[in-house]
Amino acid sequence: MNINGKHYRTIWTSPDHRQTVYIIDQRHLPHQFVIEELTTLENTITAIKDMHVRGAGLIGATAGFGMYLASLAASDHTFDEDMNRAGKRLCQSRPTAKNLGWAVDRILMATGTAPSPTAKREIAYQTAQEIADEDADFCRRIGQNGVSIIEQISKAKNGQPVNILTHCNAGWLAFVDHGSATAPIYAARDAGIGVHIWVDETRPWNQGAKLTAWELQQEKIPNTLITDNAGGHLMQRGDVDLVIVGTDRTTHTGDVANKIGTYLKALAAHDNNIPFYVALPSSTFDWELDKGKDIPIEKRAGSEITRITGLKDDGSLETVRLVAEGTQAENYSFDVTPARLITGLITERGIVKAEREAIHRLFPEH
Amino acid sequence: MNINGKHYRTIWTSPDHRQTVYIIDQRHLPHQFVIEELTTLENTITAIKDMHVRGAGLIGATAGFGMYLASLAASDHTFDEDMNRAGKRLCQSRPTAKNLGWAVDRILMATGTAPSPTAKREIAYQTAQEIADEDADFCRRIGQNGVSIIEQISKAKNGQPVNILTHCNAGWLAFVDHGSATAPIYAARDAGIGVHIWVDETRPWNQGAKLTAWELQQEKIPNTLITDNAGGHLMQRGDVDLVIVGTDRTTHTGDVANKIGTYLKALAAHDNNIPFYVALPSSTFDWELDKGKDIPIEKRAGSEITRITGLKDDGSLETVRLVAEGTQAENYSFDVTPARLITGLITERGIVKAEREAIHRLFPEH
Repeated sequence: MNINGKHYRTIWTSPDHRQTVYIIDQRHLPHQFVIEELTTLENTITAIKDMHVRGAGLIGATAGFGMYLASLAASDHTFDEDMNRAGKRLCQSRPTAKNLGWAVDRILMATGTAPSPTAKREIAYQTAQEIADEDADFCRRIGQNGVSIIEQISKAKNGQPVNILTHCNAGWLAFVDHGSATAPIYAARDAGIGVHIWVDETRPWNQGAKLTAWELQQEKIPNTLITDNAGGHLMQRGDVDLVIVGTDRTTHTGDVANKIGTYLKALAAHDNNIPFYVALPSSTFDWELDKGKDIPIEKRAGSEITRITGLKDDGSLETVRLVAEGTQAENYSFDVTPARLITGLITERGIVKAEREAIHRLFPEH
Repeated sequence: MNINGKHYRTIWTSPDHRQTVYIIDQRHLPHQFVIEELTTLENTITAIKDMHVRGAGLIGATAGFGMYLASLAASDHTFDEDMNRAGKRLCQSRPTAKNLGWAVDRILMATGTAPSPTAKREIAYQTAQEIADEDADFCRRIGQNGVSIIEQISKAKNGQPVNILTHCNAGWLAFVDHGSATAPIYAARDAGIGVHIWVDETRPWNQGAKLTAWELQQEKIPNTLITDNAGGHLMQRGDVDLVIVGTDRTTHTGDVANKIGTYLKALAAHDNNIPFYVALPSSTFDWELDKGKDIPIEKRAGSEITRITGLKDDGSLETVRLVAEGTQAENYSFDVTPARLITGLITERGIVKAEREAIHRLFPEH
């Protein structure tokens, strides 16, 4: 996708210098565009835990490359053991993110059967690259599959712009490219279908205000920032035609863990008869959990709520406290939207109802 | 109520110097405690429009005193005409607030029949004072009436603290004293019933983070700040026993306009079988509107979303931009919660179902 007109992925390596993995340090967006170099597992864990990178697919891809970086440091004598330990540490960094464990397991599976440490390291690199390429490709297909939903609404509105509400950032910044929730939006734009996006600011980390609005602006997609409180009212007014969000983990029964507040938007969409779709590559499915309420929900520091960083008029960044001294805050990062509130899941293989049988029909290998 | 242990109302006059009305300029809370002096209608309009004062009851009380200040400047020859014009200007300052028009009308009615400009000015003062005193008294009664709800839950929980979620600030800072949503909470505390309050931060103006958390802290009531996104998840977890909110206008059929985002919490409470109460003095009822969707909804500047003010480490205030340059934001201030989602209305006369017949039975004079 484009940043100031130049094409970027969110994570990449240089073929000539494989010891370094490059990411966009998203903490500084939209004010500063900072590229960070990761060279160790420790770097990678910090980048995931402290949200230099975030978003389902990008966490997965970063974990893949993190395992590759771990392979460079792994001892020839205890290689598999070192890699297992690295994988465990990575998985603890963001407990709700399904793609994290999925990517770690994929690297461990691929390296496990290779004949030598050298071969294992080469396979770790190739697999990490594959995970990233596949993520970008699956997101592209999510776009191809999801665009029909937008097209139908556009026709019903006689070509008037389709108003789509999204929560958090499930954009290309959350994946390697294209995004999940945004992929159908970019595909619609490419097909000449008029869209306008309501961007939830997404407290406390403000992924919507900082990332989604900026990303859409870079791609010249009309968008309006709103508070997380506003979506219900806009739906009541008839100003929302469609909701598309991403997910950090979706049970194979169709319950969706996504950024905290998603459940509230699903309730409002349901109450106003507005279609509510969740876009995800299949790497985000949890094939073991039957109930959304069993998904581990990450809790982060309360200071993400009580303090905020922004740009001063002089162009420098400043962090300010928003509350009285001593105010305590509690900060759950995700909630679970039950399958009953979801119109459909947009995957790389097509659109499917959020229910066990339909999901397994589309992914019979699981 | 108490600020650093000293009792305050949110608006007051000095009997010896009636030309000045004192308010707490709430824009600076919780970082600075600033008392502002209002001496003209213009001061008063600015204070209401720019939210030096806010909240249903306090807007009403301030409008009452604003009309009194207008009476001091009104010409003896065109007194009633001048007062009508002042009232119209006041009413335009916050279109959703019902107490505003109610207070203006009450002053106009009271002064209309008085025999002379001097008598009219005296009556304007007495009526403004009456409005303020009545607001404090009605809120106290809301507390007496609402405490039974908390007491019942406390008994069912064998005295474990009752977890109450509130949105925005319908605390004593939003009224002359006691508050509406907080009145039953203060009454419960006074009765020795354990409570813990979940405080929605209430974007974009952060009334919860800035005012409610601070007010409860001053009153030593256990409370935890959360994002507006979090309430649904806490309800799903069973961590919310009760929701109490205020309202800026409630139709006589039971539809409730309150701070944007209230509707989302009502949906979540309904989905999780959690009682959802709205506390209001009868001055907030709109006896003419049948449908909540006909309540005028104020739209404020998008910059309330894109910029924020907080405290730097050096103790000075700083305003920072939270978004990329050029990001557009839309900022509706209120939404309407339909009567079907409301368990009951807590008024100064008792608790009543949110439906026309029940409301009119309790207030037969309307």
